[in-house]
Amino acid sequence: MAILERIHSSEDIKKLSDNELEPLCAEIRAFLVEKVSRTGGHLASNLGTVELTVALHRVYDSTRDRLLFDVGHQSYTHKIITGRRDRFDTLRQYGGLSGFPKPYESVDDPFVAGHASDSISVALGMAKARTLAGEDYRVAAVIGDGALTGGLAYEGLAGAAASGEPLVIILNDNEMSIDHNVGGIAKLLQKLRVRPGYISFKRWYRGLLSGLPGVYHMTHTAKEWLKGKLLPGNMFSAMGLEYIGPVNGHDVRALETVIRWAEEMEKPVIVHVLTKKGKGCPYAEEHPELYHGVGPFDPETGEIQPVGESFSDVFGRTLCRLAERDKRVAAVTAAMALGTGLDGFAKKFPDRFIDAGIAEGHAAAMAAGMAKQGALPVFAVYSSFFQRSYDMLIHDVALQKLHVVFCVDRAGIVGSDGETHHGIFDVDYLNSVPGMTVFCPASFRELEDMLEQALFACTGPAAVRYPRGGEGRYTASHPEAETLLRPGRDLTLACYGTMVNEALSAADALEKQGISAEVIKIGVLGPAGFPQTVVSVAKTGRFVMAEEVCAAGCVGQRVLAEAASAGTEIRCARLLNLGEGLVPHGDRALLMRDYGIDARAIVDAAACCCRDRREDEESQT
Amino acid sequence: MAILERIHSSEDIKKLSDNELEPLCAEIRAFLVEKVSRTGGHLASNLGTVELTVALHRVYDSTRDRLLFDVGHQSYTHKIITGRRDRFDTLRQYGGLSGFPKPYESVDDPFVAGHASDSISVALGMAKARTLAGEDYRVAAVIGDGALTGGLAYEGLAGAAASGEPLVIILNDNEMSIDHNVGGIAKLLQKLRVRPGYISFKRWYRGLLSGLPGVYHMTHTAKEWLKGKLLPGNMFSAMGLEYIGPVNGHDVRALETVIRWAEEMEKPVIVHVLTKKGKGCPYAEEHPELYHGVGPFDPETGEIQPVGESFSDVFGRTLCRLAERDKRVAAVTAAMALGTGLDGFAKKFPDRFIDAGIAEGHAAAMAAGMAKQGALPVFAVYSSFFQRSYDMLIHDVALQKLHVVFCVDRAGIVGSDGETHHGIFDVDYLNSVPGMTVFCPASFRELEDMLEQALFACTGPAAVRYPRGGEGRYTASHPEAETLLRPGRDLTLACYGTMVNEALSAADALEKQGISAEVIKIGVLGPAGFPQTVVSVAKTGRFVMAEEVCAAGCVGQRVLAEAASAGTEIRCARLLNLGEGLVPHGDRALLMRDYGIDARAIVDAAACCCRDRREDEESQT
Repeated sequence: MAILERIHSSEDIKKLSDNELEPLCAEIRAFLVEKVSRTGGHLASNLGTVELTVALHRVYDSTRDRLLFDVGHQSYTHKIITGRRDRFDTLRQYGGLSGFPKPYESVDDPFVAGHASDSISVALGMAKARTLAGEDYRVAAVIGDGALTGGLAYEGLAGAAASGEPLVIILNDNEMSIDHNVGGIAKLLQKLRVRPGYISFKRWYRGLLSGLPGVYHMTHTAKEWLKGKLLPGNMFSAMGLEYIGPVNGHDVRALETVIRWAEEMEKPVIVHVLTKKGKGCPYAEEHPELYHGVGPFDPETGEIQPVGESFSDVFGRTLCRLAERDKRVAAVTAAMALGTGLDGFAKKFPDRFIDAGIAEGHAAAMAAGMAKQGALPVFAVYSSFFQRSYDMLIHDVALQKLHVVFCVDRAGIVGSDGETHHGIFDVDYLNSVPGMTVFCPASFRELEDMLEQALFACTGPAAVRYPRGGEGRYTASHPEAETLLRPGRDLTLACYGTMVNEALSAADALEKQGISAEVIKIGVLGPAGFPQTVVSVAKTGRFVMAEEVCAAGCVGQRVLAEAASAGTEIRCARLLNLGEGLVPHGDRALLMRDYGIDARAIVDAAACCCRDRREDEESQT
Repeated sequence: MAILERIHSSEDIKKLSDNELEPLCAEIRAFLVEKVSRTGGHLASNLGTVELTVALHRVYDSTRDRLLFDVGHQSYTHKIITGRRDRFDTLRQYGGLSGFPKPYESVDDPFVAGHASDSISVALGMAKARTLAGEDYRVAAVIGDGALTGGLAYEGLAGAAASGEPLVIILNDNEMSIDHNVGGIAKLLQKLRVRPGYISFKRWYRGLLSGLPGVYHMTHTAKEWLKGKLLPGNMFSAMGLEYIGPVNGHDVRALETVIRWAEEMEKPVIVHVLTKKGKGCPYAEEHPELYHGVGPFDPETGEIQPVGESFSDVFGRTLCRLAERDKRVAAVTAAMALGTGLDGFAKKFPDRFIDAGIAEGHAAAMAAGMAKQGALPVFAVYSSFFQRSYDMLIHDVALQKLHVVFCVDRAGIVGSDGETHHGIFDVDYLNSVPGMTVFCPASFRELEDMLEQALFACTGPAAVRYPRGGEGRYTASHPEAETLLRPGRDLTLACYGTMVNEALSAADALEKQGISAEVIKIGVLGPAGFPQTVVSVAKTGRFVMAEEVCAAGCVGQRVLAEAASAGTEIRCARLLNLGEGLVPHGDRALLMRDYGIDARAIVDAAACCCRDRREDEESQT
C-alpha cells in the first residue's frame, strides 16, 4: 500500500507520476477485495471502475467540481482516495461508512445516490445552477449501461441535449447491469462497441502518448481528426449530444485524455467507456452477478458464506409451483431476477418471464396491459424501487381494477444498504391505490398461502409485501385479515409481517410483569378496515402498535382513526414506528432498537400505558 | 353528414370506397368543430388525427384488435365512428361521454388513458398476453411526439424492441405536444422529418395507387425497394425496431398502405406519421396551444368564452414578482407552461425557465440538483401528473432535505377531464415524503402569502397545492397552520383549501338549525400535527371534516388518530371524502354533491352527529 497511503484527496492523485498509476490501481483492488470480503458490499462494480475513478480524480477536484456516481454502489474507490480509507472496516455498518455517496460523510460526495438513472438529471440541475450563479465548477456524472435502461436517464439525456450546458456524462459500459442487460439500449450499445473506431483510436493515442506527455494539449487539427474517428452517428448524436468513444476503461491515461477533451468541448458530452465488472479478481470476473452485492466471502477462493432461506427464495419457489398449475401466470422483474428470487422461474418458464430492465414504471404499465387481456402477471420488485411505479399503479392498474399481483420484496428495514433502500413507505403509498389489497405475510408458510390467495382468490390489484431475509419464531400460517394470536385483558398489541415476532416476545415479557397483552396479527393491511382490532381496543382501552414503516399513513394511525370514528374510548395509545422515515444503514436489530420499535420498546410503551391500571389496582389493594 | 351517418363501426369504414374517404374526413372535422365549440374539449389534436383514425379503422377491427391512443385526448374521431356520435352533445359532462378512452363506454376502447407515454408499455403487455394465449388479434398504439419525451415511452420502446412481439407503434408527429416540444427527441424528429425519403415515397406510392387498387399486396421486390427508401438508420432502428416513415398523416390511403405493410412485418414497427394540429380549422391551425384543451368558443371566429382569474394565474404572477426580488428563483415545468400559468415567467425570465418535457421524474430530480447547488427551483405541475415524481420526491429531494418548492396545480376535483386527471391523491402521497411542508391556500391572497412563505421562510421540501379555477366567498388570508375562522360550541368543522367555502356555508345553515359549529381552517397539512383542531374536538366532542381527496391518508383520519392518541373523548366523528378515489368526469359541484362532500352533505353529517345533543336538550326541557 506504498502509494495508496499517500492518497487523501484528488490533489494527491494529481501529484502521481504516470508510472505510479498502474501500481496504485493494483493496490486499490487488493484493498477492495480484502475489505469487502470481511464486511460484504458491492464488489464487482467497484473492481470495474478503479481506473475510471482514478482518471476522474486526475481531471477533477471533487471538493469543488461535482462528481456524481449513478446508483453510487461503485463509489468505493472514490471514497478510498478522498480520505475515507481508514474507515473502510466500518463499511455498511451502523454508524460506519455508507456503501453509497453521502454528502454528510464528505464534501467530495455531492449528492445522495441509491436509485438508478437519476444522475444525469441531478447533474444537469447542478450545471444549470452553476451557470445561473455565474460560477465555473465542473459537473460530471458516471452512469452504467444498466442505469441507461431507465427512462429517467433518457429524460435526463434529452434535457441535457436541449440545455447545451457544459456537462460530462461518462457512460460506464460493462455490458450488464446487475443481471444481464435487456432491451433496445443494450442492442444500441452492442453496435457501438464493435465499431472499428475503438481499435484505431487505441493504436493512435498510444503512439501519441509515447511521444507527448501533455497529450490533451493536442492541436486543433489532431482533435478534428480524432473526432472523425470517435464521433460516429448514433442515438446520442441524433439527440444533439456530443459522443466520444468507446474508450478502454482500464487505461487511466487514455481515460484522462478523453475526459479532458470532453471538458474542453464546453457542452453536454457523452464519453463511452468500456469496463469489465470484477476486473482483476478471477471469481468476480467470472460471476459478476454473484459479487454484485455480496455478503462476507473468502478473499482467496471467493467462497461466499452461506445464508439461510429467505422470503425471496420462498416466493420464487411458490410462484413456480403456481405457474405449473395455471399457464396464465407470468413473471415480470425490473432487472432483479436474482434478487427477487425469480431466477428459477426464468429458467423454468422462459416464455412467461419478462425482464423489463431498470424500468419499474414500464413494468407496471406492461403488467396492466397483460392483465387487461387475460394474463395473470406477477411483478416482483423491491419496495423502495417500486416507488417509481406509483403513478402507473393508480393510472394503469387501479382505475380499471386490473388484477395484477405485485410482490413487494425488501419491505421494511433492509439493513446495510441504508436510507435509499429501506422499504418503509409502501404501506402508505399502496394504501392510497384504489382497491389495492395488501397482504403482509409473517412467515414463509403465510407467504405461500397469501401469494396463492393474491393470485387466485383476489380480484383487482393485489400486493404481497415481505422483508429481506428470513422468518423468526413465528412459523405458523394464519393468512386471514386479522388473527387473535394471543388473548389478553389489559392492552391490545397489533402487528403485521415479521414484527409479529417482536409483539409475541413483548407479550411474553409483559406477562412476567403481570400485564396481559392481547396480540392481534394483521394479515391484510387494506383496503378494508380492522374491525377485530378495534373491538379488542374497545375491550382493553389501550393500544400499542410497532411498525417497521414511516409514521405517515401507518396502520396504527388507521386503527386509531377507525376506533375514534366508532366512538371507542381509548385510555392510552402508543404508535411506534420510524417517524419521518430517514433511517440510516446498519444492522436491522440495532436500528430497531434505536428507533424504538423492537420487543423491548413495545414492552416499555405497554408498561407505560398500563401504569394507570396498576395504580388503580394498587389503590384497590 | 351524408357519409358519417352510415358509420357505426370499423366495419362500416371498411365498406367505404376510396373516393368517399376525403368527404368523410371533412364531415368529421365539421362535426368536431361544431360539437366541441359547445361543450369545450380537446380540439386541435383531434382535428390533426382525423385521417389517421379513419385509416386505422380501415386496417383494424377495434372490437377485436386493440387500438391504444396515448393520453387519449385525440380519440374523438375514434369515438364518433364507433357508435358514439349520437352522444357527442354530452361530451365531458357528468354522466355523458368521456373525453378519453374508457372500456366501460365501448368494447372499442381497450384501455383507460389520460397520462402520457404509457401506451407502448400497455400495448406490449397486450401483445405478450396475446402471444402467450395463442391468439391472433393485432395491437397498435398511437403516440404523439410530445409523449415520446417521457421516459416511460422510451422504456416501452426498449421493451418492445427486445420482445420481438408483432406490434405497430404509430408515431403521430405534429412537431409539438401541448406547448412546443423540447429536448433531444425533438431534435431527432426534426432530422427525420427533412429526409428526402418522404418526398420520393409520396411520388412513388401515388403512382402506384393510381394503377393498383390493392396496393398493399405489393410484390416482395417493391417492398424491398420501399424499405430502402423509408428505413434509414436512426435511433429507432438502432434500438432494434423497424422504422417506416415519415408518411403524410392527412392522406388516408397512404396511411392505410403503410400501416398494412407494418402489420405484415410481424414484429415491433414504428410508423412515423406527420400531422398538423388543428388541421382544416384556420384558428386552431394558427394557435394549436389555445385550442388544445379549450372551453366553449365561437365555431366561426374561434373566439373563446372568457373565464375568470384562476389560481394558476395568481401563481404565475406572484412567482414573477418573487423572481424579480431574488435571482436564485427558477421555474420548472413538465410541458405545461401555459396550463400552470408559467407562460409569463417564461417570457420574462427565459434563462431561469426550464421546460423539462413530459418528464415529471426528471423535472423533480433536476430541481433537486439545482437546490443542492444553491438555486431556488419551483416546479409547477398538475397534481395527478406529479404522481410520476413520487420516488424522486423521496430519494432525490427529501433524503437530503433539499429546498425545492412544488406548486401542485389541479389539486382536488378537476371536473370534465375526469378520473385520470383529478388531483385527489397528493394529500396522502405528499404527506409520506419526509419533511415535506404542505401548504394549502384557500384564496388567491393566501396563495400569494403561502408561496412567499414556501420560498423564503421554509427549509426543506415544500409544496403549495391549489385547485383548478378560481376562489369562492372566502377571499381573506390566514396563511398560518391552523386558523379559528368561526368559534362554536357544538361541533368542530375542519377544512382546507377552497373547501373552506363549503364549511362556512354549512356553518351558516347549521346556525339556522340552532347548531353552533366551530370552523377551523387548516393552512398547512403537514408534517406537523393539528393541535388547535384537536383542542377544538376535545371541547365540542364532535368532528366533521369534508375533503376533496381520497379517504386513504386524508387529513381527517390524521386528526382523529392524533385526538385518539391524546386520549380525547369523541362522541361522534364523520369524515366526508372521495372514498377510494374513483371519481368520474363532470361538473365539480355535481360531483361534490353526489360524493357527499358539499355544504349540504356537511350540514347533514353535522346535524346527524348533533342528534344526541338535541335529544339531551329535549329531555331536559
